[in-house]
Amino acid sequence: MSPTPGRVTAVDTYDIRFPTSRELDGSDAMNPDPDYSAAYVVLRTDAEDGLEGHGFTFTIGRGNEVQVAAIDSLRHHVVGRSVDELCGDPGTLNRDLIGDSQLRWLGPEKGVMHMAIGAVVNAVWDLAAKRARTPLWKLLADAEPEWLVSQVDFRYIADALTPEQALALLRSGRAGADGREAHLRERGFPGYTTSPGWLGYSDEKLTRLARQAVADGFTQIKLKVGADLADDVRRCRTAREAIGPHIRMAIDANQRWNVDEAVRWTRALAEFDPYWVEEPTSPDDVLAHATIRDAVAPVKVATGEHVQNRIVFKQLLQAGAIDVLQIDAARVGGVNENLAILLLAARFGVPVCPHAGGVGLCELVQHLSMFDYVALSGTTENRVIEYVDHLHEHFVDPVAIRDGHYLAPSAPGFSATMRPESLAEFTFPGGAFWAADLAHQAELAARTANTGNAGTTGTTATTAKKAKKGAAA
Amino acid sequence: MSPTPGRVTAVDTYDIRFPTSRELDGSDAMNPDPDYSAAYVVLRTDAEDGLEGHGFTFTIGRGNEVQVAAIDSLRHHVVGRSVDELCGDPGTLNRDLIGDSQLRWLGPEKGVMHMAIGAVVNAVWDLAAKRARTPLWKLLADAEPEWLVSQVDFRYIADALTPEQALALLRSGRAGADGREAHLRERGFPGYTTSPGWLGYSDEKLTRLARQAVADGFTQIKLKVGADLADDVRRCRTAREAIGPHIRMAIDANQRWNVDEAVRWTRALAEFDPYWVEEPTSPDDVLAHATIRDAVAPVKVATGEHVQNRIVFKQLLQAGAIDVLQIDAARVGGVNENLAILLLAARFGVPVCPHAGGVGLCELVQHLSMFDYVALSGTTENRVIEYVDHLHEHFVDPVAIRDGHYLAPSAPGFSATMRPESLAEFTFPGGAFWAADLAHQAELAARTANTGNAGTTGTTATTAKKAKKGAAA
Repeated sequence: MSPTPGRVTAVDTYDIRFPTSRELDGSDAMNPDPDYSAAYVVLRTDAEDGLEGHGFTFTIGRGNEVQVAAIDSLRHHVVGRSVDELCGDPGTLNRDLIGDSQLRWLGPEKGVMHMAIGAVVNAVWDLAAKRARTPLWKLLADAEPEWLVSQVDFRYIADALTPEQALALLRSGRAGADGREAHLRERGFPGYTTSPGWLGYSDEKLTRLARQAVADGFTQIKLKVGADLADDVRRCRTAREAIGPHIRMAIDANQRWNVDEAVRWTRALAEFDPYWVEEPTSPDDVLAHATIRDAVAPVKVATGEHVQNRIVFKQLLQAGAIDVLQIDAARVGGVNENLAILLLAARFGVPVCPHAGGVGLCELVQHLSMFDYVALSGTTENRVIEYVDHLHEHFVDPVAIRDGHYLAPSAPGFSATMRPESLAEFTFPGGAFWAADLAHQAELAARTANTGNAGTTGTTATTAKKAKKGAAA
Repeated sequence: MSPTPGRVTAVDTYDIRFPTSRELDGSDAMNPDPDYSAAYVVLRTDAEDGLEGHGFTFTIGRGNEVQVAAIDSLRHHVVGRSVDELCGDPGTLNRDLIGDSQLRWLGPEKGVMHMAIGAVVNAVWDLAAKRARTPLWKLLADAEPEWLVSQVDFRYIADALTPEQALALLRSGRAGADGREAHLRERGFPGYTTSPGWLGYSDEKLTRLARQAVADGFTQIKLKVGADLADDVRRCRTAREAIGPHIRMAIDANQRWNVDEAVRWTRALAEFDPYWVEEPTSPDDVLAHATIRDAVAPVKVATGEHVQNRIVFKQLLQAGAIDVLQIDAARVGGVNENLAILLLAARFGVPVCPHAGGVGLCELVQHLSMFDYVALSGTTENRVIEYVDHLHEHFVDPVAIRDGHYLAPSAPGFSATMRPESLAEFTFPGGAFWAADLAHQAELAARTANTGNAGTTGTTATTAKKAKKGAAA
């Protein structure tokens, strides 16, 4: 067949980095100085509607170029494909990308290559929802159960969830969906905030931001822990005093501990009534999570932001290793794999509380939770989406929070589209911000070499502040 | 301190690809057309000895450039370091690379970034052994137990193996080491061969190569299975008839199955007395391997070539999920992590039968098994190293096989050094082979566009044959 109109003509990639490390935003026990970044991809087509599909992998700085190279390596699977076919059945592309026999060797289904697949697959879903003139959560909630099941790859999970079981869950999930959709549009989906709890913040800032979180309507906050136990005891006491006894307080160790440390440390903080302990150890360690969960109850165990794929989530559920399942929109192989994970969570009756923050993770993941509420799990009980107030200003359709709830997006798509000015300014290393910053650093280095004095870093700090608040803010 | 002589001056990377897909070498149920490749790294120093450290990640073609980019992203950790310090304590570099907080986000400890760490760490060990003028297996076997323990990262494995337990294993492993070293130098370490069993081979070729394997002294062969059950029944029968009842025959599904399929398929082949079934399902699925092992006994379960790190190996052992542990020298974070895995295997009493083949994997992994035999497990019983007769001619110190055994390497280093002519010829896309091949393909494409006829592929086939046998052979 000769080519017809409506094909993918380009898969353009961008290395986007924000200099967040300069203000200690996002610091935790394992990640002291992240520069929040995105390996960003735009699918362009020759369709008359002129719509583009946007997607990305979130990283925290160095290595973002490796992630971009990984997305580039998938290009040949996408360019030239029919837009109608892609958007009508993203599952086929998903399977083609996962099934590339040569690229598969680099995973399989984990790490850099798998996140690259997720970025491309999510870009297709963004395009599909834009073409359908609907936000992604609504596209998913309105989809036929049979079609949703066709979007799931059951390889390696069929021992815990068959296509027939998935179909039954989706069919029963439709009962009452209209009422829940109306409620969602009015009230939104509950969030919780990590903004007060970064390790790099002073106690005074922690208190101020924790009180602010309660005033803003959040019913849960989260504190980073795991660097120093005495500090954590003080910080947990400070936070509990600031929020009072009725607001939930989660703690997050970011994989810092071995099993024994996780148990000891969590018990030492139990007097402050933590709701869950998050990432107590390696995200790869199903059996360790099960051991820890047994030992720290009634404190709940949560993990998922670094869980590599549906296969590990399946085992966490099979082993009874977690109380709370934390999907991430940009870690696994995209919407298709997250559908599988949401279905697994529903089958095991475990609540999903997504990881978010970073660059654009809130924007993406809200769609998945809203679909889950309207048309699958049917409840928001014990379900909250993480919220961090960073870098939303770089997105065309940023999340909207009201009274501690994520408001349902109304714009078509997956809320993944970054502002063109932000792409231009924060492309690394050639964008306006980085070009100026790198020139400034080179100048400082030259001055230091000449005089032995490091000079001031005033210009850098100023431009970093501008970065945080957004180029156009 | 001012810089002193003997520092790393360069970390040079090479994208090396061999066109193996053109002869169906290496074809299996998941990997129908691999182009065996290496993301290759050379550490250069300004030390007077002029020695270099060589290492690599093995890939099967597309994506090798992503792996090269990942190694490049580690360069700043290595350039400028003291060669004495690096070689005296590779464990510190290993921890620095794994602990890079920004790069860690891309794993952690899995996939592309982790294999890149393995390539660099292995290059350091190659350099350390060259400087010590000894093959790596001997350097490890002669090392003090306390120092070997200092080379292991116990994070996430201390619940199964403490430093004290590791030290005790290494101390008891020294008893009788001299006698085992003498035996190893005389007889070598047992191997088994996969050469007869690739899926793409005809039954006639399978029979011929299986008989040849027995004549060559191998006591075990391996067949790829998992694409079509009727074919597998015929091929297993053919192979069993060729080798007789006393030679072991392993089968390898390369992750093709769900749990139910794995059990059903393995039972259907049980009449041909397979010794182990390898990679029956996802390498991430600890619980599935445990279920399969229970169901297919007495057929043993083996896995490991795609197991991402010590944490998953630990769980496979804790869960009683495997009978045979298959390390790979270039999948995990290098020699240091493989030390941890060998120690875990010794603690659980599970035999280690390394994965090899590909490009240079035999050359590397023999050192680890020989150390294990001489100074840790103390036995070769039920232990065999995979052997495939591919691409050894590209290495300066290729493996030597005699009577089905790997002979102990005597040249200093890790046997990782590729011939300079091979690097020059098979660098992608600019090396002599690929430049000619790509020009030829472009010419064919142009001719097809002009005449509608694909023409012949004679030139390509000829150069491919040359590739397989080595530029200088």
